[in-house]
Amino acid sequence: MQATIITIGDELLYGQTIDTNSAYMGRELALLGIRVREILSISDDKSAILEALARAEQASNLVLITGGLGPTKDDITKVTLAQYFNTTLVRNQEILAQLEAFFASRNRPMLQSNADQALMPASCTPLRNDRGTAWGMWFEKNGKVFVSMPGVPFEMEALMQQEVLPKVKTYFQLPVIMHKHILTAGIGESFLAEQIADFEDNLPTNIKLAYLPGIGSVKLRLTANGTNREVVQEALDVEVAKLVAQIDKHIYGYDDDQLEEIIGKLLTAKDKTLATAESCTGGYIASQITMVAGSSAYYNGSVVSYTDESKQALLGVKQETLDSFGAVSEETVREMLLGVCTKFGTDYAIATSGIAGPAGGTSDKPVGTVWLAYGSPTGMRTKKLTFKGNRKQNIQLTALMALELFRKYLIEI
Amino acid sequence: MQATIITIGDELLYGQTIDTNSAYMGRELALLGIRVREILSISDDKSAILEALARAEQASNLVLITGGLGPTKDDITKVTLAQYFNTTLVRNQEILAQLEAFFASRNRPMLQSNADQALMPASCTPLRNDRGTAWGMWFEKNGKVFVSMPGVPFEMEALMQQEVLPKVKTYFQLPVIMHKHILTAGIGESFLAEQIADFEDNLPTNIKLAYLPGIGSVKLRLTANGTNREVVQEALDVEVAKLVAQIDKHIYGYDDDQLEEIIGKLLTAKDKTLATAESCTGGYIASQITMVAGSSAYYNGSVVSYTDESKQALLGVKQETLDSFGAVSEETVREMLLGVCTKFGTDYAIATSGIAGPAGGTSDKPVGTVWLAYGSPTGMRTKKLTFKGNRKQNIQLTALMALELFRKYLIEI
Repeated sequence: MQATIITIGDELLYGQTIDTNSAYMGRELALLGIRVREILSISDDKSAILEALARAEQASNLVLITGGLGPTKDDITKVTLAQYFNTTLVRNQEILAQLEAFFASRNRPMLQSNADQALMPASCTPLRNDRGTAWGMWFEKNGKVFVSMPGVPFEMEALMQQEVLPKVKTYFQLPVIMHKHILTAGIGESFLAEQIADFEDNLPTNIKLAYLPGIGSVKLRLTANGTNREVVQEALDVEVAKLVAQIDKHIYGYDDDQLEEIIGKLLTAKDKTLATAESCTGGYIASQITMVAGSSAYYNGSVVSYTDESKQALLGVKQETLDSFGAVSEETVREMLLGVCTKFGTDYAIATSGIAGPAGGTSDKPVGTVWLAYGSPTGMRTKKLTFKGNRKQNIQLTALMALELFRKYLIEI
Repeated sequence: MQATIITIGDELLYGQTIDTNSAYMGRELALLGIRVREILSISDDKSAILEALARAEQASNLVLITGGLGPTKDDITKVTLAQYFNTTLVRNQEILAQLEAFFASRNRPMLQSNADQALMPASCTPLRNDRGTAWGMWFEKNGKVFVSMPGVPFEMEALMQQEVLPKVKTYFQLPVIMHKHILTAGIGESFLAEQIADFEDNLPTNIKLAYLPGIGSVKLRLTANGTNREVVQEALDVEVAKLVAQIDKHIYGYDDDQLEEIIGKLLTAKDKTLATAESCTGGYIASQITMVAGSSAYYNGSVVSYTDESKQALLGVKQETLDSFGAVSEETVREMLLGVCTKFGTDYAIATSGIAGPAGGTSDKPVGTVWLAYGSPTGMRTKKLTFKGNRKQNIQLTALMALELFRKYLIEI
């Protein structure tokens, strides 16, 4: 059972849009035990689409297609699919009714280009789109399935959940593939590999190990396959336990765990609260923390102090501290932490001050120099870090290290 | 002149990693007038790699490959390339010396797996990697070029700039392709299309229009091709001018312009300063603004007030305002704006308060309800918005609309 993903759009080839749809579809198919053989990104061009369809049909049982379903002239996926499946376009009354209601509710006239979105290839099953005007299409041919969806991620994701995945589960007899991700930070890929070389050599043949390096972190993925869900799960659990025992201290979480979520759970369990005082990270840490639903239960807020004056006025950093040690110093982040805990009345805080770049570096404190403070007012820890990335990377690495160090602190105290 | 991009890695097919490398390479090639024909993402699997190489060789003059060059066992790109080009691996002394220096400077032992990164296919030109231990490879075959680079974006980008693009420019005689992006907000794709239907119908045959819808915005791209740079540029300029004249009021910028950068330029030109007071956006706006290099010149900082108490203590929002109108109200964002301007001593501020979801909605104020205030203490404007996305989308849409409304305000006053 193999799948091909085809994403259609010149903007993907010109690099103006990053293809996030493929990763979303790949993740969802993997959960069903469907292996993606290939992802193809191609142009809004009839012959390119026809060629990709033919190629995918040869190699796969399931073909997921996104893009090119909009109301404008460069959107040609629908007519090309009708040609490929040798069928005609017919007006679908259900879609037309939904379109009319959609435009009426927004007090907007329905244009001809919108009305044409109710045209569907006669041989497909239309798939309802609740979030937009381009419905999906489900084609079957010699036991193989082709699905076409809009390229807007928000619409595609709803179509996948509500229509495509349930139908795929019913249509195909699926094998069992299971994954477990082990998330590490603070150790390089080759050092990890050296530590677990024996483990890797002795893996059963149906279990595979992969290394996925990220910014400041390495994800390990164990993949097991078989036919019986319980047997596969058990075999995977055994190997995961062996692996965890060997590299325990480098692991911060599993699968989709995110550092900021884990910190939220730790804070909730301890019934403690957090605030942040950010200079070089400029609100990035606050933003990461508050993307987690329910974060208002343990996170009280942040002061982004982008000037010396605001470090004094809002956080109580002393003039003489800034004069003697500078804004990027251990003394300043200590006072930032104390100040923000007081202002927000929290148990803990994280404070950052550094030079994100590209300007602002000196020979003493080059671009990438960062001071962190984290913990409670009476038990805070500090750390100096030096990064060599560009502005965005320096900000992201600072946030990652600040959250990881704070997580370890929460576990240790 | 066509290119194929091949990205290698099981993590791409399982969807654990979003392929950002392809978009980067696509953008860089487009700037050189090289059209990407196809992007192929495939598994760390020998036969898949060999098949993709053969397919790419048939269709393209240039093949860019990323991934699978790490020191671990699942990284097989290098040996597979050696097989494809019928050559052997030889130790490269320059790489070995760099590796030894790299590990010595970090006081780490060099492992065998690292030392093996100095092995290179005999027939390739090695491409120096300053940012990591996996060098790139440049192969030539019958006038076609194959380039292999590491999959870590930070390393690949440096290799592209320092090695690959300069060599590509020298090796190939390149045609001229030029793009212009026109960035709009606040108007739907089909309404834009209707407004400019005549314009689109009358475009010269060597100029193409595309619609790239995003979250709350639509990018229009005009692409012109030809052989003479000046002639192509002139033809493109003529069409851009026609288009801009028709939809001027919806345009916020061009090409890689970002709202937060445009706002920075407007503030700099007016010699004015900005602060933000964020509730539902949780620091996201601050983070966007401070990702711009040099933003400290006009941006003083933010208060992320995630509790009622912090809205009072740090921003001076009155208890009775919160009691009478609630935290998500016009009255509250007005007081937040006044408070944050005072605290940071800025000319302007943006304040947000809303219900990002998934919890916290009521029948009066459902999830997605947002109040914005923006402008100066004496000339502020307010706006209520209602979004229907998930938590992350509601936060992003709020930030986009807040920045866009503030941009228009800056232009009008």
